[in-house]
Amino acid sequence: MSETDLVRALAAVLPPESLVTDADVLEAHRRDQAQWAPAGVPRVLVRPASTAEVQAALRVASALRVPVVPRGAGSGLSGGANAVDGCIVLSLARMNRVLEVDRRGMFAVVQPGALNAAVKAAAAEQGLWYAPDPASWEFSSIGGNLATNAGGLCCVKYGVTGDAVLGLEAVLADGSVVRTGGRTMKNSAGYGLTRLFVGSEGTLGVITEATLKLRPRPPKATTLVASFPTLVGAGVAVTEIMASVRPSLLELMDRATVRAVESFGSMGLDVDAAALLLARSDAGGGQGVEELARMAAACEAAGATFVAQSADEAEGELLMQARRLAYPALEKQGATLLDDVGVPLSRIADLLAAVEQIASERGVLIGTFGHAGDGNMHPTVVFDRNDAVALERARAAFDDILRAALALGGTITGEHGVGALKRPFLGEQLGHGGLRLHHAIKGALDPLGILNPGKVF
Amino acid sequence: MSETDLVRALAAVLPPESLVTDADVLEAHRRDQAQWAPAGVPRVLVRPASTAEVQAALRVASALRVPVVPRGAGSGLSGGANAVDGCIVLSLARMNRVLEVDRRGMFAVVQPGALNAAVKAAAAEQGLWYAPDPASWEFSSIGGNLATNAGGLCCVKYGVTGDAVLGLEAVLADGSVVRTGGRTMKNSAGYGLTRLFVGSEGTLGVITEATLKLRPRPPKATTLVASFPTLVGAGVAVTEIMASVRPSLLELMDRATVRAVESFGSMGLDVDAAALLLARSDAGGGQGVEELARMAAACEAAGATFVAQSADEAEGELLMQARRLAYPALEKQGATLLDDVGVPLSRIADLLAAVEQIASERGVLIGTFGHAGDGNMHPTVVFDRNDAVALERARAAFDDILRAALALGGTITGEHGVGALKRPFLGEQLGHGGLRLHHAIKGALDPLGILNPGKVF
Repeated sequence: MSETDLVRALAAVLPPESLVTDADVLEAHRRDQAQWAPAGVPRVLVRPASTAEVQAALRVASALRVPVVPRGAGSGLSGGANAVDGCIVLSLARMNRVLEVDRRGMFAVVQPGALNAAVKAAAAEQGLWYAPDPASWEFSSIGGNLATNAGGLCCVKYGVTGDAVLGLEAVLADGSVVRTGGRTMKNSAGYGLTRLFVGSEGTLGVITEATLKLRPRPPKATTLVASFPTLVGAGVAVTEIMASVRPSLLELMDRATVRAVESFGSMGLDVDAAALLLARSDAGGGQGVEELARMAAACEAAGATFVAQSADEAEGELLMQARRLAYPALEKQGATLLDDVGVPLSRIADLLAAVEQIASERGVLIGTFGHAGDGNMHPTVVFDRNDAVALERARAAFDDILRAALALGGTITGEHGVGALKRPFLGEQLGHGGLRLHHAIKGALDPLGILNPGKVF
Repeated sequence: MSETDLVRALAAVLPPESLVTDADVLEAHRRDQAQWAPAGVPRVLVRPASTAEVQAALRVASALRVPVVPRGAGSGLSGGANAVDGCIVLSLARMNRVLEVDRRGMFAVVQPGALNAAVKAAAAEQGLWYAPDPASWEFSSIGGNLATNAGGLCCVKYGVTGDAVLGLEAVLADGSVVRTGGRTMKNSAGYGLTRLFVGSEGTLGVITEATLKLRPRPPKATTLVASFPTLVGAGVAVTEIMASVRPSLLELMDRATVRAVESFGSMGLDVDAAALLLARSDAGGGQGVEELARMAAACEAAGATFVAQSADEAEGELLMQARRLAYPALEKQGATLLDDVGVPLSRIADLLAAVEQIASERGVLIGTFGHAGDGNMHPTVVFDRNDAVALERARAAFDDILRAALALGGTITGEHGVGALKRPFLGEQLGHGGLRLHHAIKGALDPLGILNPGKVF
């Protein structure tokens, strides 16, 4: 089959504005933000405006056995949206409407291309809150958030993206449409298919609509910062906090990260601490004060050398700003390989120690920050972009971190997904039985294997 | 194949204490608590003591093409554990150990036969809390809770059983073992298989171990009761409460239920109200007081004729007692058909009105109570056990209620599962595409169809 056949077949079922073959546009849709993951060259870009157009495109792809790579806002960090040679890139960017916000039903119905920020804004108009807040919330799409089961800072109290999904509409590889779940808060009717599509990174179907759970807006948060002379102390503080209260945020930055943030813009952080913890409570009122006091006590008992609490919003925002600068500040120091691993809560200090050892053994700089309250950390390898040997060392360190997480009973990805980047490691995590089950399900839903091949497993 | 062949094959791979053929024991393992669901006659009861024994039994079942009906504590309400003729009943009751409670990791590892109450107790010993609380928590097993994705009273704030599961071990139909998820709070590695097994009612595999998420124990709850002259008023109060705070419990009883409770044991409830709401906050301290005040204001604005708040534990417990008596009190009045439907939060009043109309049209008594904050209600048809015509009318009303829930955009089951009882209705809810997807997944995981046939779909 020639390239022309594919384009002709698509043109026969799609309006012209939904079909793009311009080389520059294709080039701009080749990859996501995972700079070091492989990416092929697509044949054509399809930009459907409706579920029916997604169906039409998938029917053509099935008939001609052409791979389809679904794509949201392109902000992914694992190469899950990277093209494979000769594929159709299926961008959901035009299907970006918030179709409905039902205040009394406490849900929103949205198209996959809607940005997370747009959903938050639409919910806020009704006095409600869409909780999931990946760091990319201002520029990532709901479809991408669903594809990777994206996390964020508030997960420690409010759960990940999958916890906020009531139902989905998806188009399968053969072009048929299925609906999962619904608009009810609870549902025990049939299999948990909603959660099967969430996190499947476009390999089982193309999500064309999502019904998302909304919440009442929580009270204003109060903030705590604590610095620890040892990683073990910080790890103990995290587990003791989690065993006694449910913070609305519990983040950690190690020394390398704190120093990067300080050299980026002086924030007055303790550059000699082994780790800083940043915690918030949105319990509100006296309970918020009490939760903060209990967290402060846990930090002190774990050996914190400095603990400060603030109910002042501006002060809290400044501390949050320091945390948000973690990755940009590390990026400023060189090229980066941003990792995303999870360990059981009790093993956070062990993970941090393992990362320090890897940095020393491989002779690379690694700054580690992340969602300590979930045991989900982002060790970030920083290296010289123009030094091929340094890239090799960085890649080796990146892989070492994955193995360290697995050795601690953890996961190779907590919130970014497997994509193309970590595919070689999934088998190590799942084992033979788990991998076989993945193949069985993939075979049942996408027997021709056209959906996002070469990703996940 | 004769019955003897099956028993002989099982006896060759299982110790004698794991194999039961005694007719009285088999009879006692024929059905769960869904009195009106069909149940067949099993050939043999297998009571494995280990995952290896589950594997051995399933290998025999696969080789001989014998259906297997997994069974927990037998407290199910949809006939999901009801035998089919000639089957192996696989009781997980002996695999009832709490294997590990990791206080710092905030998880417990348990066998499926462990009672929910035992898991709660083991968590409490470490100062932690296992949240899910189906009404049957004292006598239902974790395996059964997982199979139906059981709910309860605290779900409105803390989620259903599936929300508390970090990972599973399951044995597939061919006897192979798979592990899903893990011990981390977040995990984006591969498909959401944990949530695929949860709620699959023993049709995809036999869960042999679960890693459950634990939480810090919440503060003591404060309690509010409000009575409404109209169903619409109660429905509005529920949606307004849910839009402003997150109660730790939000239950409703309609007039028929309140009257049944009052005639069971006089509690001083308002027998003229159209509905009573019972709400709790466990936010603690001043925030708990504030949440209760906001809920009281929402009730008053929605036309409540009586609102009382109590921070007194004994008083709160007395109100909870009234709610717990709802089903026993209705059962006292005759035979019952207990339904379990869910609707979007905005449609609760519509559901209650529809149920009233069904009761009137069918000439039956229906008491409705349930988890209003989740839109999950239990309309309970009460009828004369010795009157065949009354049973027919009750069954017709039961089916009408399912149709009414579907017409309101709801679900035929919020927490009890489909089982054998509601199987004819699943297709109406899922549609052709959804049902086809169920068959595809079932075919991929259990190609011989030996696992709990005739259940769910």
